[in-house]
Amino acid sequence: MASPAQAPSRIPELRHDPVTNRWVIFSPARAKRPSDFKSKTPQSANPSSESCPFCGGREHDCAPEIFRVPPDSANPNWKIRVIENLYPALSRNVAVPDGEIGCPGRVLGGFGYHDVVIETPIHSVQLCDMEGREIGEVLLAYKLRIEQIMRCEFIKYVQVFKNHGASAGASFSHSHSQILALPIIPPSVSLRLEGSKEHFDKTGKCNLCEALGEELVIDKTAHFISIVPFAATYPFEIWIVPLDHCPHFHELDHHRAVDLGGLLRLMLNKISIQLNYPPFNFMIQTSPLQVKDSQLPYAHWYLQIVPQLSGLGGFEIGSGCYINPVFPEDAVKVLRDVNLP
Amino acid sequence: MASPAQAPSRIPELRHDPVTNRWVIFSPARAKRPSDFKSKTPQSANPSSESCPFCGGREHDCAPEIFRVPPDSANPNWKIRVIENLYPALSRNVAVPDGEIGCPGRVLGGFGYHDVVIETPIHSVQLCDMEGREIGEVLLAYKLRIEQIMRCEFIKYVQVFKNHGASAGASFSHSHSQILALPIIPPSVSLRLEGSKEHFDKTGKCNLCEALGEELVIDKTAHFISIVPFAATYPFEIWIVPLDHCPHFHELDHHRAVDLGGLLRLMLNKISIQLNYPPFNFMIQTSPLQVKDSQLPYAHWYLQIVPQLSGLGGFEIGSGCYINPVFPEDAVKVLRDVNLP
Ligand SMILES: Nc1ncnc2c1ncn2[C@@H]1O[C@H](COP(=O)(O)OP(=O)(O)O[C@H]2O[C@H](CO)[C@@H](O)[C@H](O)[C@H]2O)[C@@H](O)[C@H]1O
Ligand SMILES: Nc1ncnc2c1ncn2[C@@H]1O[C@H](COP(=O)(O)OP(=O)(O)O[C@H]2O[C@H](CO)[C@@H](O)[C@H](O)[C@H]2O)[C@@H](O)[C@H]1O
Repeated sequence: MASPAQAPSRIPELRHDPVTNRWVIFSPARAKRPSDFKSKTPQSANPSSESCPFCGGREHDCAPEIFRVPPDSANPNWKIRVIENLYPALSRNVAVPDGEIGCPGRVLGGFGYHDVVIETPIHSVQLCDMEGREIGEVLLAYKLRIEQIMRCEFIKYVQVFKNHGASAGASFSHSHSQILALPIIPPSVSLRLEGSKEHFDKTGKCNLCEALGEELVIDKTAHFISIVPFAATYPFEIWIVPLDHCPHFHELDHHRAVDLGGLLRLMLNKISIQLNYPPFNFMIQTSPLQVKDSQLPYAHWYLQIVPQLSGLGGFEIGSGCYINPVFPEDAVKVLRDVNLP
Repeated sequence: MASPAQAPSRIPELRHDPVTNRWVIFSPARAKRPSDFKSKTPQSANPSSESCPFCGGREHDCAPEIFRVPPDSANPNWKIRVIENLYPALSRNVAVPDGEIGCPGRVLGGFGYHDVVIETPIHSVQLCDMEGREIGEVLLAYKLRIEQIMRCEFIKYVQVFKNHGASAGASFSHSHSQILALPIIPPSVSLRLEGSKEHFDKTGKCNLCEALGEELVIDKTAHFISIVPFAATYPFEIWIVPLDHCPHFHELDHHRAVDLGGLLRLMLNKISIQLNYPPFNFMIQTSPLQVKDSQLPYAHWYLQIVPQLSGLGGFEIGSGCYINPVFPEDAVKVLRDVNLP
């Protein structure tokens, strides 16, 4: 286990993040030296391209395509493909009855859309190897797909996420992300909105806009800022936040997508170098599609990056409360001072 | 990845559990055959007893003892020891100021108790190898420690949990569990109470009492019942619930502790046999210490067992919503039909 705290003067703290609306335990006694956090389990499943259905030329091994970029379905030189997930968690072919089949709980038909975004035709290219402009195109593919999905009135929330590396859940090493469109508003999103509302009712301000004025800034571009959140749930967690208040990710324009792509690239490279190419997830934390006008002033989307450095245990599963051994003040130093090659 | 559903007629469902107050996605397309669920990564850290501080005779390698069972601190033939955690997440030596150090969030001093329960002096004995009566003694050790801790008015909730196996978070293979006493009520507990209150306000009944009448029963003893919850978050998740309505685990008497020990033993043996000795966690889901009188009629404790069979990905981390590939109706069949040796 851990060696005692680096900064022996530090005492444990509980911090409540106004944005996620959660308490996190910061535990110096459980801190490991930053070097201990360097990931030891870099890689994941299907590392060879031989049987990879996501590779260029193997399109026939995939579930049906929704669109490709550039948007010519006959073009074999595609850059990005958005396809149906072959094993979807929710199905586009299910009726949408609100079961209420009585006790003990409520049941909804599992209607929804579950897609895969193949970010490149080339097996060995990872997102952090791509140009900011190319990552921008992936982000615009998410946006386009969300805009298609939101025409369906039954979809309440669209979760975009990426798994990279086996211990981040990825079953494929070919660079990809997923889009899961839900007929409910998931718990993290409700909790986030409740917290922001409370803050807005008290102060008249968006809590994420306010948080950007704090010290925990890693980098900044024309339109985005990357920070370590004040009460980060996970060690070295990063948020990329639009500087201008904005409720929905899918409002992203081309110009901002390229800007965001560049900053995302920088953050992925920074965690790769500082934490030894860790498995990671990123998630787009946006607002419900049918957000109310009254909610707009405190709904602010962001992109959450979580390097997977330590597992969970019974405490987190049972309580929903997390222990983070790395204070955000320390994490931000590690992420600021990086000499990129 | 998965092969398509076993029961091809099944469609995905979203189920809302009235007890946990959460939606879970049940996805037949992501179902693997039961054999695929058999754990492949059985074991964990320090498998040898040579350097294990939890072994009998190595008491001096541990953080200070709180008590042992039988309660004679000079007795080298102890059966159970409750000790301080050497790397506590929260500290008993911290003042308890409600920081409010201003923006961006709230800060509390990290006051709390974090203990380890060594369940046996013998390195090779696991909980499921022990008699029901012996497991009952471990449960009574939890109870005694909670009763000591609850004298401190700043403690709001006590989380008892066990990690078994590396992918369930255990850094030690010597059989142990942990007790973490918190100055806040954790999110899962608040959510659970809110859900039960809603149900109680509507029906005048405790939702967990009601859920026990359903079909998803695995086994039953004089005082306890084991079920697969209607909207289980995890595949093969099991709850052991007291048959009589009861808010707090620490109300357990000696007689019921032995009864519960026997049922817990049976459940651990069943998952071991049916799922190939998987890593697992169990958590005691009890009520806040200072629960209000008005909350008592709908606060009902239970013990939650979670075999660790599949990891999480960005979807769960981002949304707080879970995908369970195994319908509770199928899990309960697997857990009912076991020939124990
Ligand atoms: N000599 C000694 N004397 C007294 N105590 C000693 C000791 N040596 C070690 N300990 C303590 O013994 C405990 C053993 O606990 P576990 O192996 O169940 O998981 P751990 O708490 O390490 O982390 C898992 O559980 C936590 C909580 O769920 C998760 O945060 C984490 O990610 C997961 O790996 C540790 O907490 C450790 O601090
Ligand atoms: N030929 C093909 N055509 C189209 N699609 C194909 C395909 N072959 C496979 N797929 C799909 O491609 C996806 C690849 O996704 P990932 O590797 O990121 O994680 P996966 O969804 O398997 O599970 C991880 O992420 C989820 C969600 O977070 C967690 O529930 C889970 O535990 C974790 O392992 C899978 O969803 C799979 O169904």
